[in-house]
Amino acid sequence: MGFLQRLDRAWEANGSNLCVGLDPDPAKMPERFAASRNGIAEFCIEIVNATADLVCAFKPQIAYFAAQRAEDQLETICTYIRENHPDAVLILDAKRGDIGSTAANYAVEAFNRFGADAVTVNPYLGTDSVEPFFAAGGGVIGLCRTSNPGGDDLQMLDTGGAPLFVRVAEMISQRWAQLGDCGLVVGATYPNELAQVRSIVGDLPILVPGVGAQGGSADEVKSNGSRRDGHGIIVNSSRAVLYASNGDDFASAARTVAEETRRSCSP
Amino acid sequence: MGFLQRLDRAWEANGSNLCVGLDPDPAKMPERFAASRNGIAEFCIEIVNATADLVCAFKPQIAYFAAQRAEDQLETICTYIRENHPDAVLILDAKRGDIGSTAANYAVEAFNRFGADAVTVNPYLGTDSVEPFFAAGGGVIGLCRTSNPGGDDLQMLDTGGAPLFVRVAEMISQRWAQLGDCGLVVGATYPNELAQVRSIVGDLPILVPGVGAQGGSADEVKSNGSRRDGHGIIVNSSRAVLYASNGDDFASAARTVAEETRRSCSP
Repeated sequence: MGFLQRLDRAWEANGSNLCVGLDPDPAKMPERFAASRNGIAEFCIEIVNATADLVCAFKPQIAYFAAQRAEDQLETICTYIRENHPDAVLILDAKRGDIGSTAANYAVEAFNRFGADAVTVNPYLGTDSVEPFFAAGGGVIGLCRTSNPGGDDLQMLDTGGAPLFVRVAEMISQRWAQLGDCGLVVGATYPNELAQVRSIVGDLPILVPGVGAQGGSADEVKSNGSRRDGHGIIVNSSRAVLYASNGDDFASAARTVAEETRRSCSP
Repeated sequence: MGFLQRLDRAWEANGSNLCVGLDPDPAKMPERFAASRNGIAEFCIEIVNATADLVCAFKPQIAYFAAQRAEDQLETICTYIRENHPDAVLILDAKRGDIGSTAANYAVEAFNRFGADAVTVNPYLGTDSVEPFFAAGGGVIGLCRTSNPGGDDLQMLDTGGAPLFVRVAEMISQRWAQLGDCGLVVGATYPNELAQVRSIVGDLPILVPGVGAQGGSADEVKSNGSRRDGHGIIVNSSRAVLYASNGDDFASAARTVAEETRRSCSP
């Protein structure tokens, strides 16, 4: 089953558009995890178990693992999710972007090593740079409009009557969608542009980071980004869920925040 | 000593603009390495020793290590280069691009974990996305014009009288250069655009992949990309050097190709 089909099933299974992002920061976890050799995996697995019935997807952010020399723990987490919560879609947030044989190696990393259903990629190198990901049979989610202020620097440049991010939305929906299962990233901090991208890309899924700690509104994301069936969006919250508490109640606190966010962003 | 100062010293030390890219592919190495637990590191270290007096830099491409679950071997190689060939600049080719705390984690990966002097980054997320790399004190080399055909998809879009890659060259030379030590990537397959970028960015270093296996000409790169002092370019060759032979003579064959390429691209 491909990424889009698995995602449709995941949206339905829990009636949820929520994605919990796994950005493990040892300094913010309860102390007992920071002290353990596999504390990152142990912490993330507790978060996964506390929220799995509330989400459509989990999205580990690989930078947090790379900085801690913890790729092995990321493998453990991905295997755990696939075996114990098989309905949840697994998105590797890696924002890869390279050419030819290098991209093919990144596809092996995302789809074979970590068993992800989809990987986030950067569109700057163009369509041929993502072909190896499609050839490997995985899903590809291209950055379109990012949630940070500096996103304007290039993404808002006028390219003959439309900003660059609109050209990216067109490239993904017209060209990438012919090659395989794909989606786009649009930050929750830009609700108007989310509506604009939705009007361009038809029913393609849109991954929306920036809800919670970054200040985006889940309600606005739902009204501006979802499809007629109420799904179509993957609304990510990372820090607000993971670090809802750093005490012994961190898992139940994470669940409470996940429940609230799910309610705001789901049909 | 920062990236630019180390690079100036490296260009002078060996009178070379050549960079050897470390893209280890077990299928292309002599068999004895593919069979060894640390074969990737052993192969790369033999290449490094065979070429270190001919180069200004080494550039490991992290995707090849990630696909093989071999980040530990990349650490070994980077430590080896820093300890045994301290004049060579170490560039981590990772094309990272993310925001805020995620970018800060990628900076830890590049500069602390691997001890790189500089890391390649993708400019699509704008200037604030690279600030954490500068804050960490490392060098930042931004993609400007990539060597693949699909690079045209976005990089050649007209943005009010100039293509997007020119705006990127302006952003890097005017804004990033205020923040720290930086450079740009321009593919050898586009020699005219290399000359155009040189005219925009003053003396900033330009990393030029695409010589060798990808078909770019080292002579053209030198004439179109170098500064008045004959340096200013980091001309990368990976596969043509690494896989010059897959027999027992692979190291001497690599050295022969490296010598030829160095001659063509250096003052």
